[in-house]
Amino acid sequence: MRTLTWLPVTEFERVRAGIADPHLRCRAVAAMTRINTLYMVSRAGSGHLGSSFSAADVVSWLLLEELREEDVYFSSKGHDAPGLYAALIGLGRLEEDLLHRLRRLGGLPGHPDVRTPHMPFNTGSLGMGISKAKGLVLGNRLAGRRQRVFVLTGDGELQEGQNYEALAGAVHARMGELTVVVDHNKLQSDTWVADVSDLGDLAARFAGFGWGVLRCDGNDVAALDRTFRERERAHPDRPVVVIADTVKGAGCARFAATSMAPGEWRYRFHSGAPSPADHAAAHEELTAAANAVLAEAGLAPLTGRTASVPDPPGAAGAGTVSLPRVYGEALTALAARDERVVALDADLVLDTGLVPFRDAHPGRFVECGIAEQDMVSMAGGLAARGFLPFVHSFSCFLHARPNEQIYNNASEDRKVVYVGSLAGVLPAAPGHSHQAVRDVSAVGAVPGLVVLEPANPAQTRAAVDYCAAAPQSVYLRLVSVPCAAELLDLPAGPLVTGRGQVVRAGGRVVAIGAGPVVLAELLAAAPALDLTVVNLPWLNRVDPRWLADLAEGADAVVVVDNHLTRGGQADLVARALLEADLPRPPRFLGIGLTELPVCGTANEALEHHGLRSDRLTDTLLARLPGARLVDLGRCGS
Amino acid sequence: MRTLTWLPVTEFERVRAGIADPHLRCRAVAAMTRINTLYMVSRAGSGHLGSSFSAADVVSWLLLEELREEDVYFSSKGHDAPGLYAALIGLGRLEEDLLHRLRRLGGLPGHPDVRTPHMPFNTGSLGMGISKAKGLVLGNRLAGRRQRVFVLTGDGELQEGQNYEALAGAVHARMGELTVVVDHNKLQSDTWVADVSDLGDLAARFAGFGWGVLRCDGNDVAALDRTFRERERAHPDRPVVVIADTVKGAGCARFAATSMAPGEWRYRFHSGAPSPADHAAAHEELTAAANAVLAEAGLAPLTGRTASVPDPPGAAGAGTVSLPRVYGEALTALAARDERVVALDADLVLDTGLVPFRDAHPGRFVECGIAEQDMVSMAGGLAARGFLPFVHSFSCFLHARPNEQIYNNASEDRKVVYVGSLAGVLPAAPGHSHQAVRDVSAVGAVPGLVVLEPANPAQTRAAVDYCAAAPQSVYLRLVSVPCAAELLDLPAGPLVTGRGQVVRAGGRVVAIGAGPVVLAELLAAAPALDLTVVNLPWLNRVDPRWLADLAEGADAVVVVDNHLTRGGQADLVARALLEADLPRPPRFLGIGLTELPVCGTANEALEHHGLRSDRLTDTLLARLPGARLVDLGRCGS
Repeated sequence: MRTLTWLPVTEFERVRAGIADPHLRCRAVAAMTRINTLYMVSRAGSGHLGSSFSAADVVSWLLLEELREEDVYFSSKGHDAPGLYAALIGLGRLEEDLLHRLRRLGGLPGHPDVRTPHMPFNTGSLGMGISKAKGLVLGNRLAGRRQRVFVLTGDGELQEGQNYEALAGAVHARMGELTVVVDHNKLQSDTWVADVSDLGDLAARFAGFGWGVLRCDGNDVAALDRTFRERERAHPDRPVVVIADTVKGAGCARFAATSMAPGEWRYRFHSGAPSPADHAAAHEELTAAANAVLAEAGLAPLTGRTASVPDPPGAAGAGTVSLPRVYGEALTALAARDERVVALDADLVLDTGLVPFRDAHPGRFVECGIAEQDMVSMAGGLAARGFLPFVHSFSCFLHARPNEQIYNNASEDRKVVYVGSLAGVLPAAPGHSHQAVRDVSAVGAVPGLVVLEPANPAQTRAAVDYCAAAPQSVYLRLVSVPCAAELLDLPAGPLVTGRGQVVRAGGRVVAIGAGPVVLAELLAAAPALDLTVVNLPWLNRVDPRWLADLAEGADAVVVVDNHLTRGGQADLVARALLEADLPRPPRFLGIGLTELPVCGTANEALEHHGLRSDRLTDTLLARLPGARLVDLGRCGS
Repeated sequence: MRTLTWLPVTEFERVRAGIADPHLRCRAVAAMTRINTLYMVSRAGSGHLGSSFSAADVVSWLLLEELREEDVYFSSKGHDAPGLYAALIGLGRLEEDLLHRLRRLGGLPGHPDVRTPHMPFNTGSLGMGISKAKGLVLGNRLAGRRQRVFVLTGDGELQEGQNYEALAGAVHARMGELTVVVDHNKLQSDTWVADVSDLGDLAARFAGFGWGVLRCDGNDVAALDRTFRERERAHPDRPVVVIADTVKGAGCARFAATSMAPGEWRYRFHSGAPSPADHAAAHEELTAAANAVLAEAGLAPLTGRTASVPDPPGAAGAGTVSLPRVYGEALTALAARDERVVALDADLVLDTGLVPFRDAHPGRFVECGIAEQDMVSMAGGLAARGFLPFVHSFSCFLHARPNEQIYNNASEDRKVVYVGSLAGVLPAAPGHSHQAVRDVSAVGAVPGLVVLEPANPAQTRAAVDYCAAAPQSVYLRLVSVPCAAELLDLPAGPLVTGRGQVVRAGGRVVAIGAGPVVLAELLAAAPALDLTVVNLPWLNRVDPRWLADLAEGADAVVVVDNHLTRGGQADLVARALLEADLPRPPRFLGIGLTELPVCGTANEALEHHGLRSDRLTDTLLARLPGARLVDLGRCGS
């Protein structure tokens, strides 16, 4: 347990009532918002501090002074959600109780979701905001109504091509209602934007598309005031971008990018909770800063409330082994042996485990920025020159944003390895924009592409070797939550395309799954039901003979997908079983997600979707009445 | 049969040998290339004349004078393939015989493919070229080699966001090796670029991203010569764009955009073969123009060869009813009744059947340009305002380019109707970039999205009503080849989600399929095998009870997919059959594409992929030996 301090709404009310000057009032509210943002993120155990702080002054000014009742505001980047939530709660527009429920089931999602009041769109998938805003404007015009729409974007976000698809149409339609604010804090998730994919002259970019451009210090309330006034006057019938020059982590020296050591490449507070020490120091600093503003206004210091909160919920499994880290080390070693290997990354060098690769093989590491389509097609060009590109992003983005580019590479018979980390329903804290539960189906039909999901470190290392040796392209699906300890010593057979391995010999109910999340739950459920558990790491290929042998003596075959139930391993296995034309086909049951994945802790999400071992047991007992679930007969071993 | 004239390679050799002046020689070759381009497209029955002609001078100059042995050139837009092929054949770099095999199996694909010599990449999917070129440059640098890379893009193509993802990195890496030539003919597939999504100041756009910019008349050989010389001098270590101002259809008054009547919105020669009258007049004009250049050089006039060629192969089925046309009329009528209906288009207003809608409801028609991601997210914004957006493109693009945006809309429970025409393996002439055989799998798992493929006009009209009334979003998969006459009177039952209808009562082998292509082939194969044929228009939903009843008395169930065999209807039905736990489960066979779709005529493609009725019959006889294929027992009726 830890004791954390937060500010109740009553304190926000006292301060707003007690300060007449709008600039001073906004500075006070912004400072207080940062205090509650820190509380929410520390309590949740994850969340985006840096972006929330850089945007805090813009958000506070818009909410307090600029936005009229009928206007719309939303964040396209979505990473600044904790800050936006804290501001809305402070202003009484969201329930105060939600302060304590960031990234929890039924609480405030890790990224904005329309089911939360004042969130017009689901964001967090980058680059969609300007297009969505244009849709609102078109709808308003059709409804004969004029409404100002304000969209906040990140600057790293501007590497996404969709932004530029959106710009021209807004000019064409003379969208004076539309204002885009760029939170130009110069840092994206990993490091400096200029080092990743320089935006160059940002003003010239927007001007080149015909947009009106204004620019100001985005952490200076007075400057924001002047700039938003200027917006209407200067460009009444043109879309306008306000380039707000901000500091990531602004308002707190400890988190501020300006405090980074010379030459330090990594900004440490993009996501994730601060250490207890960082939290304590930052809280003290933020409180002092807020009280200084209050003193300037002649108000008494803040009175916070304390909450004794549980330590942040761990991810599924007690283990601590990260498959992306194991993967990154294996790829680094492979590259030392194989000159063809090149790694491409889309601004997730930390999360994809590529830091060792970048350090060991800087010449063969290509940082593409948040530009997945460009990255995947560049990989095609590298493959055309005889190289073996490994392409990296979160699976939620990698299967979807460059979906057509992946097919195009495949159509050239060019071998590319796509590595999607953060695959599956866990972690559930970031929410559905980041939960890749559709990736297998979205790329599973691509000709010459095999989808492979390793279950533990040994199989991850084997998978890297497989990717290097395989004749075809591979989509490597990597779960990022720690690998449960009981999976570390799974029987490690060779990777043979389409074939799995019995990892627990049991009765005549054969349960098949891939990856650490599913296998951990199946192994936990196995004893009670005497399940025969099979690790089938192949998600779009199955060897019919192997499957027929496995199913021969089975009463039932169950496939559990860490994926939506359509288009995953259950479809694959069911069809192969039926086509195998067995004399005595087993009963079949496929279990997977049947709806949008929920945001919450690992246990909340697995429980909700019926994937936790106890829920799996219940489902099998309920849905396989005929099958005798406890049976000493052995098969498949 | 028709008689068409073409120019043999010997004529190109005579002209190249007979003209010393490079400018004059290039003008002659370009003029002759246009003659053979016309021949190829007329013979093939389809192909892109306008783009081939606008780019002919650029392509001829590059191939004849600018490119060195080690340089690379390719077309990103790919629509100008016939012109590029004609030029390469004229220069002896491709087999002369291929002149007669455009868009035929084993011939020259409708869009560039790496299996054809001198085609480094598969293009035709727009906006990938600059990224691919960057991959080549990176690969070259890793291999310690310097190579100039020239990429031709369209101007409409520059609406695709991927281009802008690509620009920054090229500057960051100081890619002086990279030159992009924009064939700036001011027209995209339907109409004027400026009317669709104005590029504004194109030079400023590229300059805003830090590129070097040069500009010239792209149909003036001398100007091209000057400009390419300037390129190295002016920007030795920067990527450069050469904006080549061209005329679509240049070199032939009849095809030239400059001949369009004042106010005429549609350019008629973007794709498709010219009428016999247009062909004859254009051929005469082109020959006169070429002979004038030859005379200027003191050479004798051209001597062509004639070929008596069959009339262009028709598409599958003898029918002439276009489902997109029927769809467009139905949507137009729906919009008259339902104020919520808005239609969004991505520069395919003709092919998606939307002309009547645009004319009847101009205020509710949104032309988005070639910017599918922007279009889909805008639809989300319109839905957020209570409208019912119908989003349109070719299915090959609609399921893939905005794949993440479709999921994002679904995650908001916003109802959007996605209409993908040109679905399936036919027409096969454009090649795999345009054959949507992966769309069902790529969107089939999206929560709250139903994939529906109507089989004939009546069902298409019913599908439009279903889309309007359905609680969930719909992906409407429309086959564009004419609907076979025998499908016009299929029994027309109501559309009930997940349920199909027996359209031919037969024996105990039940063949299930969706859409006009599959059903026409199944009905043709049915009599010999006494198949019971079922029209199941649902591709990611099946009603288990309905299916169980259907399969009850069946010896075998066969599902034929106009789609890759993974992730289509066969997977759906097989799993549902197995989960139905029937006392006597039928044998099961799924038939679909198992590889990249081939380019060719409809018959060539269906034959190659085993989807033509005779091949289906063979497959059933071979793969269902046990099933007694001719049996008087009746079921399923």
